[in-house]
Amino acid sequence: MQLGMIGLGRMGANIVRRVVNDGHECVVYDHNPDAVKAMAGDERITGVSSLRELRDNLAAPRVVWVMVPAGDITTGVIDELATTLDSGDIVIDGGNSYYRDDMRHSKTLSDKGIHLLDCGTSGGVWGRDRGYCLMIGGDQEAFKHAEPIFATVAPGVAAAPRTPGRDGEVSQSEQGYLHCGPCGAGHFVKMVHNGIEYGMMAALAEGLNILRNADIGTRIEKGDAETAPLTNPEYYQYNIDIPEVTELWRRGSVIESWLLDLTAIALHESPTLTEFSGRVSDSGEGRWTAIAAIDEGVPAPVLTSALYSRFASRRLDEFADKALSAMRKQFGGHDEKPGA
Amino acid sequence: MQLGMIGLGRMGANIVRRVVNDGHECVVYDHNPDAVKAMAGDERITGVSSLRELRDNLAAPRVVWVMVPAGDITTGVIDELATTLDSGDIVIDGGNSYYRDDMRHSKTLSDKGIHLLDCGTSGGVWGRDRGYCLMIGGDQEAFKHAEPIFATVAPGVAAAPRTPGRDGEVSQSEQGYLHCGPCGAGHFVKMVHNGIEYGMMAALAEGLNILRNADIGTRIEKGDAETAPLTNPEYYQYNIDIPEVTELWRRGSVIESWLLDLTAIALHESPTLTEFSGRVSDSGEGRWTAIAAIDEGVPAPVLTSALYSRFASRRLDEFADKALSAMRKQFGGHDEKPGA
Amino acid sequence: MQLGMIGLGRMGANIVRRVVNDGHECVVYDHNPDAVKAMAGDERITGVSSLRELRDNLAAPRVVWVMVPAGDITTGVIDELATTLDSGDIVIDGGNSYYRDDMRHSKTLSDKGIHLLDCGTSGGVWGRDRGYCLMIGGDQEAFKHAEPIFATVAPGVAAAPRTPGRDGEVSQSEQGYLHCGPCGAGHFVKMVHNGIEYGMMAALAEGLNILRNADIGTRIEKGDAETAPLTNPEYYQYNIDIPEVTELWRRGSVIESWLLDLTAIALHESPTLTEFSGRVSDSGEGRWTAIAAIDEGVPAPVLTSALYSRFASRRLDEFADKALSAMRKQFGGHDEKPGA
Amino acid sequence: MQLGMIGLGRMGANIVRRVVNDGHECVVYDHNPDAVKAMAGDERITGVSSLRELRDNLAAPRVVWVMVPAGDITTGVIDELATTLDSGDIVIDGGNSYYRDDMRHSKTLSDKGIHLLDCGTSGGVWGRDRGYCLMIGGDQEAFKHAEPIFATVAPGVAAAPRTPGRDGEVSQSEQGYLHCGPCGAGHFVKMVHNGIEYGMMAALAEGLNILRNADIGTRIEKGDAETAPLTNPEYYQYNIDIPEVTELWRRGSVIESWLLDLTAIALHESPTLTEFSGRVSDSGEGRWTAIAAIDEGVPAPVLTSALYSRFASRRLDEFADKALSAMRKQFGGHDEKPGA
Repeated sequence: MQLGMIGLGRMGANIVRRVVNDGHECVVYDHNPDAVKAMAGDERITGVSSLRELRDNLAAPRVVWVMVPAGDITTGVIDELATTLDSGDIVIDGGNSYYRDDMRHSKTLSDKGIHLLDCGTSGGVWGRDRGYCLMIGGDQEAFKHAEPIFATVAPGVAAAPRTPGRDGEVSQSEQGYLHCGPCGAGHFVKMVHNGIEYGMMAALAEGLNILRNADIGTRIEKGDAETAPLTNPEYYQYNIDIPEVTELWRRGSVIESWLLDLTAIALHESPTLTEFSGRVSDSGEGRWTAIAAIDEGVPAPVLTSALYSRFASRRLDEFADKALSAMRKQFGGHDEKPGA
Repeated sequence: MQLGMIGLGRMGANIVRRVVNDGHECVVYDHNPDAVKAMAGDERITGVSSLRELRDNLAAPRVVWVMVPAGDITTGVIDELATTLDSGDIVIDGGNSYYRDDMRHSKTLSDKGIHLLDCGTSGGVWGRDRGYCLMIGGDQEAFKHAEPIFATVAPGVAAAPRTPGRDGEVSQSEQGYLHCGPCGAGHFVKMVHNGIEYGMMAALAEGLNILRNADIGTRIEKGDAETAPLTNPEYYQYNIDIPEVTELWRRGSVIESWLLDLTAIALHESPTLTEFSGRVSDSGEGRWTAIAAIDEGVPAPVLTSALYSRFASRRLDEFADKALSAMRKQFGGHDEKPGA
Repeated sequence: MQLGMIGLGRMGANIVRRVVNDGHECVVYDHNPDAVKAMAGDERITGVSSLRELRDNLAAPRVVWVMVPAGDITTGVIDELATTLDSGDIVIDGGNSYYRDDMRHSKTLSDKGIHLLDCGTSGGVWGRDRGYCLMIGGDQEAFKHAEPIFATVAPGVAAAPRTPGRDGEVSQSEQGYLHCGPCGAGHFVKMVHNGIEYGMMAALAEGLNILRNADIGTRIEKGDAETAPLTNPEYYQYNIDIPEVTELWRRGSVIESWLLDLTAIALHESPTLTEFSGRVSDSGEGRWTAIAAIDEGVPAPVLTSALYSRFASRRLDEFADKALSAMRKQFGGHDEKPGA
Repeated sequence: MQLGMIGLGRMGANIVRRVVNDGHECVVYDHNPDAVKAMAGDERITGVSSLRELRDNLAAPRVVWVMVPAGDITTGVIDELATTLDSGDIVIDGGNSYYRDDMRHSKTLSDKGIHLLDCGTSGGVWGRDRGYCLMIGGDQEAFKHAEPIFATVAPGVAAAPRTPGRDGEVSQSEQGYLHCGPCGAGHFVKMVHNGIEYGMMAALAEGLNILRNADIGTRIEKGDAETAPLTNPEYYQYNIDIPEVTELWRRGSVIESWLLDLTAIALHESPTLTEFSGRVSDSGEGRWTAIAAIDEGVPAPVLTSALYSRFASRRLDEFADKALSAMRKQFGGHDEKPGA
């Protein structure tokens, strides 16, 4: 089967490698010609220098995977594809688009008879080897046509033991891809996945921070009028070897997880993480998940707290904190303490 | 009536002024002789240089108010009073003691027949004029004996319109003091009061921060692979005059409050609060309130979030944030961004 | 001055009373004729039965206040006014509209030369006597024209002591109304106000719940394998008189506030609040405030927690809770406990 | 090697099975004689009917594992062991004791020359096959003596791929057990582990609830004065197959985890989880973790939110919610809505 790939960043390039390794052919494009050149050397990969050329090298109905940054860039590519591809062709948006944009993009394309499949793609830099978890929305028939590609990109059933009770034929979900519903459903599920990821990451990070400060009884001076003394310093005298603890938890504990595996790697490489500043980016899905919770009227305190902690890590709470200090000064005459 | 006062800091000195202005006599002590000298000049105030001397200048049964920092210092004074005062005397701990310490202190004193009244005292630097809101625990008879002092220190019923339905005789609570229960009940109620205060302060501070950033659509650059673009910059184009807004809300709004009054003062003095660093102290009660909620098994997400925001304002989340950045680097190859 | 009023619910009717009491004239309309009739008997009030008739009874340039439910109903009225009023007329939307809708409504009206002023209105059922706090956005000249009405509806400077440092001429904000900025700015500020209100209410509510359960050491049985025993039951033996405590805090405490006054009234009327089910509604602004925080990238954990607590009070967390129980059963064989 | 086991509940019995399968001998006791009888039939297992008899069947220095409910029951067993065992013997507390209790228990035992090792044991009902993750505190020499038992109970290095960069000799942590520090360190690390577990569980649960309500645009009626209408019902029209989504995420996604595996099992067995009420227990460690965060002064909003959600699932927020409804009624005349 043939696949067109637009966008040869880390994710796009790795997906191409995975697809051709499985015997498919790829026609690849990137706005940066060097990225196209870097894919050369595999006879199943054809580099092209325009979307038009991409179109011409694919047999109809074409399947074109778009793997570019979400937002205006994706919209630009979709708009161009709407005027380049033919009716019956299929566009897969594998990026991190907001599912609401999918609805708009789908309209743009369907006006020309082109199908949009939105495809949430999880796996990060490890996906080339592990395979990518694919959450797909859009027209069922278009999905069926592109399914061999999804099956190739996904990890496959062997990536994890089968769930007890799941016997017989292997389901889509067990192979690591799933048609989740109509347009936007794929990115909606991916969005919630990332929201959960934020929460899990924060759970780990907070826990490690508590371990890190388990020696606070050895460090804290007596309190003053502004700060309560630590009531029980004798309970906080531990120097925990955090890299070893994260390694420990990888076997037999309830919190076994890939994020824990990665944390153990990171802490083995750098036990105190001093090379990091702790300014944590967020990339859309965490925000959108919280907004979905609010729109739906369901509580999501953990997911939202995780998001807010990232904002706070970038000091975006500054004016609020100043307001608190100002209030404290007004009612209690409390001056801020220089180092606390 | 006579009152002994130990501790002539801001609060202690102001309470003495209030008490003598109402016709009572005070015998005052501070470990700093200059603080004692500073109270001179009022014939109803007698300065002394030891707890023994304080005792000797008061007629039994003595009422001695302790207004010193909570923790070891208060414990030290209580211990000394246990050996200085006589059976039947009454000690009022007006500081910010943990109610659990009251139980211990009460035992120390009652072994000598001395009563402890724990007295949560709210009012800050404004209390001298406004009066102090007093939350009192301990023996009912001891409370009755000291009640005239409490009535003097409290604001009195005229400080606020009577609640509809409260007619006839004025209750303790309407005068601004209340016997809340046995030993510790006063500081327990004060602790929860401060927990509420933390939550209200944070509610205001967060809201002002949202107003402050209502112009973010004019400031934010396009997103990148690490940061989602602001979906709707057109919705965030406001330059809100925050000092005027806080002044506005003081009349007729649902959030009329003393904390808002103080915020309006602070912002009128300093519209951008640039002289504050935003490192917000916390002084015990907020922590204890959260612990009480956890012990009781009741949710207190607002009060606890307010506490955690203060911790975060002092960068105590640093290792957690570094762990998040380290995880992001592992799974996605994401480097931290220098300025975001 | 003349004012047209559309919508004679609690708020609309009370604003009309306030306006005519101050010497202005009102032409009033409601889709329910009985509501119009109920306003009869004051010669300064003219009831009408259609928007056309409302228009005909007002001299140009007309000022028409819309006080109907936000959302589709407000949009419907705006659309009708766009075809009924004349160029130069002014529409005030005094309801709880989303500020983003103001932008749309403003466009609808400005296409006909009509001005929209968005006016966040705080004060609830007490506003008729206390006056309403008014947060206004839109064209500056239109605002100036309507300002006498705003000045009448607002509480006036006497409603609170002037902030220290504010001398001389009384500002808009001190009178209780403020032109906050261009279209939407008024409802934006009102939205944040309500967000703060949610946070303050939750702070109070959580604190009262902690007081309520201060006797838990007298009630809790021993723990079991599923539930930790209360470590220190001796610390939770208090029966706090919550109505008296809320009354107490009204004088001299740091948390003096109108919400506290109202809580004291409610608890004086009904000390255990047994007539309430505890299913707490939310009406839009709390949600929108949290979404604004997320869009702006600023942490708002307190305001958002307050919102989520309301969702949880309506059991909208049900599936999440079932999922937790299901996980616990899977990994630990824990069955749910019937009553805990 | 010989091991004494006290407590033959699910965990204790499974540990015994694992230990004897690896060639060690066990002397087992439970206060319930039937539990002892149930272990019969393996010649390496000796059942006894008293702690004295347990002592007599073990060669000194004895290693005795206590696996009984935390709190008073564990304390009772420790007290009895202090008078039964000999100097030089080793007691392992493998239950969920509070690390602060370990310090007390250690004192009780060390007065008789007996060592206490506190051992946090994770693995639930699956541990017999998977092995248990063991977090151990206490005297280093005592640990060394008992280490063969820990090595047997732990999963062993093969349970997970080795972390990149970890070559050569296999560390304790890689085998699934770790001496974490002095007395209490094991249970401290286990406590934080469970705190993280609470956070991860809640992250998953909240995410699933958001998926569950992704169809809310098809269900929600128009808003009213009390409830904002859903602004964009068209964005919430998805019927997500949640069991399939959890299965999907098990392969290739960032949130791969054992908790997700268990969730997939649970949802495969019961797609709507109707047999659960959603009253979620908590068992101590989540509370203690939050208290540790507060004592240390580090923010833990995610872990604490997860805890509070469990409290709320058991309706422990009831009085707070009633107070909110009461306030809303006071300021806005809002009655609670029967079903919302």
